[in-house]
Amino acid sequence: MNRWLYTFGCAPDSGAPVDRIPDHKAAAALLGGKGAGLVEMARLGIPVPPGFTLTTEVCRHRLEHGADPAGLADELRAAVAAVGAATGTTFGDAARPLLVSVRSGAPVSMPGMMDTVLNLGLNPTTVAGLAARTGDARFAWDCYRRFLTMYAEVVLGVGAGDDDHDEGVFERLLTDRKYAARVQKDSDLDAAQLEALCADYHQAIRAATGAPFPDDVWAQLDGAIAAVFRSWDNPRADAYRRMHGISAAMGTGVTVQAMVFGNLGDTSATGVAFTRDPASGEKALYGEFLVNAQGEDVVAGVRTPLPIAAMAQDFPEAFAGLNEVCARLEGHHKDMQDLEFTVQDRKLWMLQSRAGKRTGKAMVKIAVDQVHEGLIDRATAILRIEPGKLDELLHPTLDAAHRPPALTKGLPASPGAAIGTLVFSAPEADAAAAKGEHVLLCRTETSPEDIVGMKAAVGILTARGGMTSHAAVVARGMGKPCITGATGLRVEAARGQLTVLGKGGAPDQVFKRGDVLTIDGSTGEVFAGRAPLAPAALSPELEELMAWVDTTRTLKIRTNADTATDARTARKFGAEGIGLCRTEHMFFATDRILAVREMIVASDVAGRKAALAKILPMQQADFTEIFAAMDGLPVTIRLLDPPLHEFLPHTAAEIAGVAADLGTTPEVIAAKVGALTESNPMLGHRGCRLAITFPEIYETQAIAIARAAIAAQRAGARVLPEIMIPLVMVPGELARLRAEVAAVVDRELAAAGATIPYTIGTMIELPRACLVADQIAAHADFFSFGTNDLTQTTLGLSRDDVASFLPTYLETDLVPADPFASLDTAGVGQLVAMGVERGRRTKPGLKIGVCGEHGGDPASILAFHRYGLDYVSCSPFRVPIARVAAARAALAGDRS
Amino acid sequence: MNRWLYTFGCAPDSGAPVDRIPDHKAAAALLGGKGAGLVEMARLGIPVPPGFTLTTEVCRHRLEHGADPAGLADELRAAVAAVGAATGTTFGDAARPLLVSVRSGAPVSMPGMMDTVLNLGLNPTTVAGLAARTGDARFAWDCYRRFLTMYAEVVLGVGAGDDDHDEGVFERLLTDRKYAARVQKDSDLDAAQLEALCADYHQAIRAATGAPFPDDVWAQLDGAIAAVFRSWDNPRADAYRRMHGISAAMGTGVTVQAMVFGNLGDTSATGVAFTRDPASGEKALYGEFLVNAQGEDVVAGVRTPLPIAAMAQDFPEAFAGLNEVCARLEGHHKDMQDLEFTVQDRKLWMLQSRAGKRTGKAMVKIAVDQVHEGLIDRATAILRIEPGKLDELLHPTLDAAHRPPALTKGLPASPGAAIGTLVFSAPEADAAAAKGEHVLLCRTETSPEDIVGMKAAVGILTARGGMTSHAAVVARGMGKPCITGATGLRVEAARGQLTVLGKGGAPDQVFKRGDVLTIDGSTGEVFAGRAPLAPAALSPELEELMAWVDTTRTLKIRTNADTATDARTARKFGAEGIGLCRTEHMFFATDRILAVREMIVASDVAGRKAALAKILPMQQADFTEIFAAMDGLPVTIRLLDPPLHEFLPHTAAEIAGVAADLGTTPEVIAAKVGALTESNPMLGHRGCRLAITFPEIYETQAIAIARAAIAAQRAGARVLPEIMIPLVMVPGELARLRAEVAAVVDRELAAAGATIPYTIGTMIELPRACLVADQIAAHADFFSFGTNDLTQTTLGLSRDDVASFLPTYLETDLVPADPFASLDTAGVGQLVAMGVERGRRTKPGLKIGVCGEHGGDPASILAFHRYGLDYVSCSPFRVPIARVAAARAALAGDRS
Repeated sequence: MNRWLYTFGCAPDSGAPVDRIPDHKAAAALLGGKGAGLVEMARLGIPVPPGFTLTTEVCRHRLEHGADPAGLADELRAAVAAVGAATGTTFGDAARPLLVSVRSGAPVSMPGMMDTVLNLGLNPTTVAGLAARTGDARFAWDCYRRFLTMYAEVVLGVGAGDDDHDEGVFERLLTDRKYAARVQKDSDLDAAQLEALCADYHQAIRAATGAPFPDDVWAQLDGAIAAVFRSWDNPRADAYRRMHGISAAMGTGVTVQAMVFGNLGDTSATGVAFTRDPASGEKALYGEFLVNAQGEDVVAGVRTPLPIAAMAQDFPEAFAGLNEVCARLEGHHKDMQDLEFTVQDRKLWMLQSRAGKRTGKAMVKIAVDQVHEGLIDRATAILRIEPGKLDELLHPTLDAAHRPPALTKGLPASPGAAIGTLVFSAPEADAAAAKGEHVLLCRTETSPEDIVGMKAAVGILTARGGMTSHAAVVARGMGKPCITGATGLRVEAARGQLTVLGKGGAPDQVFKRGDVLTIDGSTGEVFAGRAPLAPAALSPELEELMAWVDTTRTLKIRTNADTATDARTARKFGAEGIGLCRTEHMFFATDRILAVREMIVASDVAGRKAALAKILPMQQADFTEIFAAMDGLPVTIRLLDPPLHEFLPHTAAEIAGVAADLGTTPEVIAAKVGALTESNPMLGHRGCRLAITFPEIYETQAIAIARAAIAAQRAGARVLPEIMIPLVMVPGELARLRAEVAAVVDRELAAAGATIPYTIGTMIELPRACLVADQIAAHADFFSFGTNDLTQTTLGLSRDDVASFLPTYLETDLVPADPFASLDTAGVGQLVAMGVERGRRTKPGLKIGVCGEHGGDPASILAFHRYGLDYVSCSPFRVPIARVAAARAALAGDRS
Repeated sequence: MNRWLYTFGCAPDSGAPVDRIPDHKAAAALLGGKGAGLVEMARLGIPVPPGFTLTTEVCRHRLEHGADPAGLADELRAAVAAVGAATGTTFGDAARPLLVSVRSGAPVSMPGMMDTVLNLGLNPTTVAGLAARTGDARFAWDCYRRFLTMYAEVVLGVGAGDDDHDEGVFERLLTDRKYAARVQKDSDLDAAQLEALCADYHQAIRAATGAPFPDDVWAQLDGAIAAVFRSWDNPRADAYRRMHGISAAMGTGVTVQAMVFGNLGDTSATGVAFTRDPASGEKALYGEFLVNAQGEDVVAGVRTPLPIAAMAQDFPEAFAGLNEVCARLEGHHKDMQDLEFTVQDRKLWMLQSRAGKRTGKAMVKIAVDQVHEGLIDRATAILRIEPGKLDELLHPTLDAAHRPPALTKGLPASPGAAIGTLVFSAPEADAAAAKGEHVLLCRTETSPEDIVGMKAAVGILTARGGMTSHAAVVARGMGKPCITGATGLRVEAARGQLTVLGKGGAPDQVFKRGDVLTIDGSTGEVFAGRAPLAPAALSPELEELMAWVDTTRTLKIRTNADTATDARTARKFGAEGIGLCRTEHMFFATDRILAVREMIVASDVAGRKAALAKILPMQQADFTEIFAAMDGLPVTIRLLDPPLHEFLPHTAAEIAGVAADLGTTPEVIAAKVGALTESNPMLGHRGCRLAITFPEIYETQAIAIARAAIAAQRAGARVLPEIMIPLVMVPGELARLRAEVAAVVDRELAAAGATIPYTIGTMIELPRACLVADQIAAHADFFSFGTNDLTQTTLGLSRDDVASFLPTYLETDLVPADPFASLDTAGVGQLVAMGVERGRRTKPGLKIGVCGEHGGDPASILAFHRYGLDYVSCSPFRVPIARVAAARAALAGDRS
């Protein structure tokens, strides 16, 4: 029989025995991260308030059938009773009422994305009981007020502020009461005033919903559970899942847990802690707490909390307990943990333990440190690295030698430098980023609704909130520089204005929407204008990790580089060769485009040859420099690929200019442009088709390559040219062009008396090439998959034209990811696997790689490893990422 | 040991024993059609002059190695000696010289495409011997003159006229001699004058080549054999092979045979005969002969010969022999034969027997008649049908009821009506046809160089030549209407003028280049201007054949039809349903395009719905009519497929017009056109992608289909709608759109209280769809392969853009055929097979068809049959062709 909930901290027969769940992973899948963490803490003897977790299976059942599974209601009653028994309370009891929290918890952490209800179980009867029992009527009414607000917002959809964070109805009523009482702070309201406020709330809820607020505690519980389950599908959770590639099918768990109160006076507190610094990775307890507060106050960032170390003084026993809990949990989970706790009357209760989100920098440092501490092995360390997050470490930082004076300083919530124009709302950020602008999102505080804007921004700056506020946690997860709690700033979103406050809080300097600022998330400093940057350097931990990575991976990593500068950068980042040198990019240089255009407008072979003769020495010089830069490493040069008309001018003015340059009439150029214009250039006269009709083009390029190789060799470099023929559709193309190119190269080498080993291969970038790869392999020394074009043709999807519909496909889950960013393994991947298998059927040792965007994408690299490729090639800055991804792929292969 | 030649009619030990060759097919492959025919006639005891055939292996050896195989020279000497022994002559002997012909003969007949040398073995010595032996010095010198001409042209490349048929040097020298002798005809020159002419020829040859004409008969033989082998690769043979899909790799045989002379006076003759009428298929000896002539005179069409029946009077014994030979050969080959013969001194010699080329009409009638005669079975009859040639029978003929008076009458060389503008040369015909013009090629006579022009023309008209002249044979092979021997016409190519001669040969009426004429190849009549046509009707033989075909084939044949008219035509031709009804073609109608454009420029859903509401009743009316026309047969309707911008105007004037129509500014329309313009529309926002973003489009179409089905059903038709969703890339598209469309249709049916069985399927036209066909099948009631788009994507080849390079690919044999005309079985075919296999893995009974151009191509239909498809769909006029192709595929499947 299926059990729909699991209890912890109370009698085991009230729910399914958690011992049956094999491991943490299974527990997280079944109970969500929060539920699994609580269950495990309870088993470790760590103090957690009793409670139970409704499984993700309940969520999936609800998603599928729109109703709870049969039997859940009975289990729920029994579990609530067990929690009551464990805490000496009864749900709905007038004297000793059980109050519970109802929280979401997905298998993969989605901080702040779903809803929570606290203090559930209060009504006019139980609130009196709570007051009597705690001897604190003010506390009881404050709890009730908070409960009414949360329940109304989450379950009834009443009173939440709109997207622009206007204050909601409850906030307004609270302000009214404070005004009437002539007090400033919420905590200045007394019990009677709070009771009156609760009456206001009841009235407002009734007005909005047409029904009284439910006093029945079981109705409250059902309503809250249903609402939290529903919140799995809210728009911001959807957006978050899409951004992080989380399946919408897994569902969330819901944990119902006895309340403990951090707001029971000055002997109570609530806080958030990390077992290590999630920004820097330093091994030190990191976190914040608020005295006399409930947990949501910390995360919401409304009040700026105290640093965790201050607990040593105020709550010495609880602090010692927290340190001990941290040690036990790290020892158990062998990873940095993100903890929520409450101190109620000086007693420590743990509310959550989960693997903590961290910056790329912390991710690397923690993994490497934990290896040195003997906590994990190297393979585990490598599997802890999210390759994409390394990106953060490879971007420029503020130049320490030229640091301007800071405007102000906030909390260093997420490290890295960001330069952007100021925007003040998420929609603004999104719109500007869509136009290619770099924006800094500046908010008083952030809320989950801001997630899209944070994604669009290059950095985030908030005036309020701590190191564990929403903005901080999300920014670290995204690897974006972030400063929180910059209390020296006043943010006025409506006016589009940011004011730097001087001494005594007086306005000092004002920045407007569109002004440029620089933030340093590593120090918390904010600078006016563009501060100077320095290139990224690999940290010692990253260097060490990379050494482990390189002994683990089997895939070679090459780079896509069209210039010697790119080649050198990539080599510094560990590239083991050039996998794609596009010769056409060289054609666009202003000193060459004229010759290229001459070639194109030439009406015969002689004319083309004359123009090509001008291009030859330029190409040769480029190749010589690249060969020198890649001394000892292979360089794959792709012969001309794009349709010729790409090199021609298109507007009337451009056409006139070119005509003047070439000494002909605009009509001649316009006619040529017209003749070369194609309906679908992607599928037109390009790639090796150009060389089938105009053999002199590849002939010239082959001469340039051969002469460059000879020159570089004479200058002392070891040269390993690999000549790549693009867009092969039928084996005969490659057979013919290979023979022509080889004849030219051999002739040049013989004339120079040089011996240079070179190979000739092809790009596999059409479905047909994959299908007949066995025949193509007969003429190829190597294959390089061009998965960009292979994706375009396999999916019938022009990369330049997807903007009008691909977003809809992504939003409505028709495709799991942009197929140009991450390989479509279900479709294109089949063709790649087929091409590899068939190619090697003809030539068992055939060298096979991939060039193009997918070569730098970790998910795609895992697939390429599985297909048995020899190397991937990616842009220079992605090389370290690819190295790690390749190592993870090797480990996944070994372990799967 | 390999034998390089096979003898016939002489001692068997002089060549390889022909008995070792298993059957006619193997004989033709090894010896070519001519060689195999002679060998077989010799074995049947039919009189053939002794000779031998060099095998196609020799040709292939020469193509590969550029030289004769070792051992051939010895075999050649022995075989020549044997031929001499059999004829009582000796090669090069002064007294009894052996003269031979050297002729080509490919495994597949290529009439007139390669070269021939007659009378070889003559030199100043042997010509005297020939004169002495025949007692006819004039004959001997005439033979020598002919030999010199042919040898010089074929072997030495001297003296042939240029492409425009200027007379060559030998013709000019002949004319000079006739002028000097004051005679008109060649035959009026006496022996001495011919001897002098031969001296002129020797001088001309020496002047052109710098060397004397070879007197050594062995050198003559080697030269002639080499030249005939070489002619396998001449441009016109290449062109012919490409046109008929003949492999260039098979090579030709060369037959060397003792000469017999049809020019030995009035008791000699030469002729060509068919065992049945190759134009009509009637069972009657058909052919022509020329008294006192050599064979080339008949084929070249220089003299207009006598009908074969006239032989009964002039050569009664030979005629009786010929009739007897015909009967034996048809009994042996069980097919209509094309024969060449010579009568020398009243004795009949057969020079060639091969399957005769025939018109489509004759092809059908002969096959059906031979079944009735018990000569062949029905399967053999079906396999005799070249499906493509049926095309000739399906085009309009002259309307018998409205026949205008004829200008003149020639020989009905190839049946059918053709209307075209006059052109007078092959290049002219080719150029005009390339521009889409219908042209009639008008020549005094045609020669092999005209082949390209004949292909380009819709009909051929010659003033000279008989029913078996080059023009007649080639036109019948191509299925083009042709009139030869229209002696009432004078053709002046240089003046671009055709003169109709009146009584007494006086010019009567003149037509110029560009004037339109009509020819009736079935009667030989020529008409001025456009004569009225009547639609084609199936002949009784074709009806009978089609009945056999329909019981043989397993593939169903549907049609592509967008209108009720097309649907009715196709149904008349045997279509078993509509496989593709393109809804967008209806959108272009002038009364609708405005509403379509309104839909496109609409900026929101409401605007689109308003415009779609106008389109709805029009689509509904169309569908109703189509459903009625296809009563009881399935109708597959494809929902909107093309990119929307196709419906928008593009020039400034068009844009202004549309703006006025829609009551908006040209700027608005221009902006919309700009926004919708795509880099690669083929891979852009089209197909079901339109419905993913704008669901209201398919919704409207679904309503139109449902209401039309209800209306047609109420009017008494049995309606079987199949709704087809195009361009599915991921299974989710089909799942979603299927649900949306089904919901609409079900709602409409329910509202009308109607029950109509309908299905929803998809086009499989992207490589990815083939790869995940198993998942797509879960949501599909049927698949229809869209092999046009599947070819474009699989090959990365835009159909609209191939003109700049595909011709090079075809000319240089990189691809065997235009992949848009005939399915690329090696590439695209693999994906089709995969899609079928995977689709049926999910749904074993899944109905699968193909729509698009390949559905009417016989070679592709064979492939589709092998892949296990249920039906093909093609244009209405291709339906009978597809039916026959499907039957042939079924027989090939059974027999292979």
